[in-house]
Amino acid sequence: MRVVDARVCGSSDAPVTVRGWVRSVRRQKKWSFLSLSDGSCAETLQVVFPGRVDSSVTTGSAVAVTGSLQQHMRLPEKELHCAEDSASAIELLGGADAETYPLQKKEHSFEFLRDVVHLRGRTATMGSALRVRHTLSGAVSASLDSQGCTQVHTPIITGSDCEGAGETFRVLPAAELRASSGGGGGGGGGIAAEAADGSAAAGATGAGFFGTEAHLTVSGQLQAEAFAAALGRVYTFGPTFRAENSNTARHLAEFWMIEPELSFAGAAEAMDSAEAVVRAAVAAAEERNAGDLAVLDQAFGEAAARRSAAADPAPYARVSYSRVVEMLQEAHARGEAPAGKDGEAVDAVQWGDDLSSEQEKWICAQHADRPVFVTRFPRSLKPFYMLQADPLEDESGPVVEAFDLLVPGVGELAGGSAREHRLSNLIAAMETHGLIDAEGKAGPLEWYVDLRRYGSTPHAGYGIGFERLVQFVTGIKNIREAIPVPRAPGLCLM
Amino acid sequence: MRVVDARVCGSSDAPVTVRGWVRSVRRQKKWSFLSLSDGSCAETLQVVFPGRVDSSVTTGSAVAVTGSLQQHMRLPEKELHCAEDSASAIELLGGADAETYPLQKKEHSFEFLRDVVHLRGRTATMGSALRVRHTLSGAVSASLDSQGCTQVHTPIITGSDCEGAGETFRVLPAAELRASSGGGGGGGGGIAAEAADGSAAAGATGAGFFGTEAHLTVSGQLQAEAFAAALGRVYTFGPTFRAENSNTARHLAEFWMIEPELSFAGAAEAMDSAEAVVRAAVAAAEERNAGDLAVLDQAFGEAAARRSAAADPAPYARVSYSRVVEMLQEAHARGEAPAGKDGEAVDAVQWGDDLSSEQEKWICAQHADRPVFVTRFPRSLKPFYMLQADPLEDESGPVVEAFDLLVPGVGELAGGSAREHRLSNLIAAMETHGLIDAEGKAGPLEWYVDLRRYGSTPHAGYGIGFERLVQFVTGIKNIREAIPVPRAPGLCLM
Repeated sequence: MRVVDARVCGSSDAPVTVRGWVRSVRRQKKWSFLSLSDGSCAETLQVVFPGRVDSSVTTGSAVAVTGSLQQHMRLPEKELHCAEDSASAIELLGGADAETYPLQKKEHSFEFLRDVVHLRGRTATMGSALRVRHTLSGAVSASLDSQGCTQVHTPIITGSDCEGAGETFRVLPAAELRASSGGGGGGGGGIAAEAADGSAAAGATGAGFFGTEAHLTVSGQLQAEAFAAALGRVYTFGPTFRAENSNTARHLAEFWMIEPELSFAGAAEAMDSAEAVVRAAVAAAEERNAGDLAVLDQAFGEAAARRSAAADPAPYARVSYSRVVEMLQEAHARGEAPAGKDGEAVDAVQWGDDLSSEQEKWICAQHADRPVFVTRFPRSLKPFYMLQADPLEDESGPVVEAFDLLVPGVGELAGGSAREHRLSNLIAAMETHGLIDAEGKAGPLEWYVDLRRYGSTPHAGYGIGFERLVQFVTGIKNIREAIPVPRAPGLCLM
Repeated sequence: MRVVDARVCGSSDAPVTVRGWVRSVRRQKKWSFLSLSDGSCAETLQVVFPGRVDSSVTTGSAVAVTGSLQQHMRLPEKELHCAEDSASAIELLGGADAETYPLQKKEHSFEFLRDVVHLRGRTATMGSALRVRHTLSGAVSASLDSQGCTQVHTPIITGSDCEGAGETFRVLPAAELRASSGGGGGGGGGIAAEAADGSAAAGATGAGFFGTEAHLTVSGQLQAEAFAAALGRVYTFGPTFRAENSNTARHLAEFWMIEPELSFAGAAEAMDSAEAVVRAAVAAAEERNAGDLAVLDQAFGEAAARRSAAADPAPYARVSYSRVVEMLQEAHARGEAPAGKDGEAVDAVQWGDDLSSEQEKWICAQHADRPVFVTRFPRSLKPFYMLQADPLEDESGPVVEAFDLLVPGVGELAGGSAREHRLSNLIAAMETHGLIDAEGKAGPLEWYVDLRRYGSTPHAGYGIGFERLVQFVTGIKNIREAIPVPRAPGLCLM
């Protein structure tokens, strides 16, 4: 921004000083050329220096350059021209030893850059990805604000556990771990761990600090529902955690979720809301980050078409799960079906089966490679809190008012549903999922049941995986590049 | 919002349907009156119903009311009048048993409300607090965005540990805890805990999952510095954690911090930035939440004057620590000094002493009860990464380019500094703090040292405690009311 500002506002004669980092240096006989970035945008500023710049000015070094802004000979951009007589036109603020600095000008693999995550934001591609991520974050919040949603910071440390699905992280004060190690020199102590029946041992397991077992949240949804029942429309936007040992390009141990909850709304309104958020995010990136998107499109090459398809004014298609299964079966009969869950094309999909990511891609392809809502999923595929719907003729079993938003390149970008707001139905669903104890209580979720006891209303909500939104807009292939500092099994740098 | 919209847009005759929660019911002989809230704003809508509404319509229940908007007889507001002949004008969506619903119309103590944290957002005061918090969150981000800062989500789980200050939480996969409990039925197993020399035992302590000891972040600052060295100006806005066993009105185990870092900036520019953020936050609340602030001012009664003092166009005063000590000593000589660190007035403060919260309040009082920056603190009071300044005549020892922003009613709202950007000085400071090992390495902070090896620049940053900002603007006394779901020793509801 500041480099851009300098370009725009500088008169061609008044000297200006620009600070930034050297992306590259070219030394010729009579001239030297620096490509300078201040990190605020994808565009760099070309510095034209009379003579050979000092050898201390290397790729990665920080400099302050004084000169006058001149029109480039052939390009629309301006250049910063250092005066002929000024030996001190380039001030070295901080060097970067060419022998050891990990980011020389040549291209680096993303795998290599993950090992220098504290430096990788300085590369053109990662810098652009981070700036687009910032724009998307602001655009999502602005869209939800304009939809009348109040942002609520739901807790990160929680005694509840949404869905009971997925492995969680436990949280324990470091001091309790230290104290319980017995103070010996060789780590010979032990701490009492969670009992096998699920009850927490006191003290060292963390029950001591909070008085209960504490976990990192896997979703803020249930808590968001509590605040939707107070404020009408709310959303959370915060970090969530899964301790699953999946070392894939699609999973992180720490990732950010956007989770709106809308009182007095059904699945249709929730889909309207999600579609508005996605459109706002795409539009904001196109408007604010044209240069960054050009860099990313060159690096990853797919997302421009996706963005344009998502921005098309025609509403995103809404197709029921049952219809999708029918389409897949018809394709199977024609020998054109995509692969199944395990990646191999075998039997035709049956009603009640989960959809594979290959099938999700195929569904988008059937809809002009645009985002598609798949609706009304079999109840058996979805969590306990979703609202059961009256089955339609083409449905082979109980369905819930759920939806997934599938997008090309990424697959499931968002998922949501109307929530079961009737007390007795909720209790019955929780019993089925083993969440009700012998005394008829919901244990750590008793507060959630309270929401149906007092002033319960029809409501609906959804969750957008923020890194997946970043991937959708930028084309980033591996989710570890969609977040500033990735966390995964064996990966905890910085 | 929707109730307000209905008021504004509804013609007086066309029937409208409004959905919300009943705040109170008054049943008279010929008329019933409901106070209805949809949670979007402080204002409620008065429903006028001919006859006695059904006894199922109680405080806390959710209803849909159909009627026509009519001008109130004496007030500027409109009322929703149900038709005489319509018995179904009020549809009960979800009841709230008057015998068991915890929030009847009478006033509740904040202590009581903390026990029903899943419901307390429905009270007028907490609803207003949550809506103001939302406005402040958006205003902070908008201000920093306009300052050219890119938001970076720094990691929550970290292998680094900012400042080494304060107790941290450790993060361990629940499955590893379960596995290491030996599978027995009585919790008789034990897990290997951290060795006393600080090295992590493998496996069950969490080193197994991440390959290193993982903690919850106490600050995103150090990571933000890495991204400032890539993007120029950045900020983090995320949850931070302290495992300190402080059960006070000023501490939380989980709280949100705003942490900007500005490349090519000094302490003065960082103070400019912080002042702009505070002004933007106050202005946004005044503009968007007038009704909410009226509710909060009535409940807490102090903040209106603070907000107006903070909005005054005169710049916030900047006074050095040494001058503050001098002022306190002069006041002590006059017998007018505030209490010391332990709350008791004893000896005069000496150069090098920390300031007590009473002294901080006194400093604001000396400056027309406006926000004040105290600058240039003794080095011994501040963390290792702060930039050492050349001492001035009135300074009795080494000082750093640090600042605290003190505000009336809250005390320290923000703290920041220029950062030590010179490699050798940083290493020396880290040695003093015991952060360099025998091999001359900084262990888990080696990446932070890298930032000074490659393209280092002068830079500065600060942190704002977001809940303290909420307290400053709203007047909330106890920080547990400044966050939707508080976390503290023994407190982990929801």
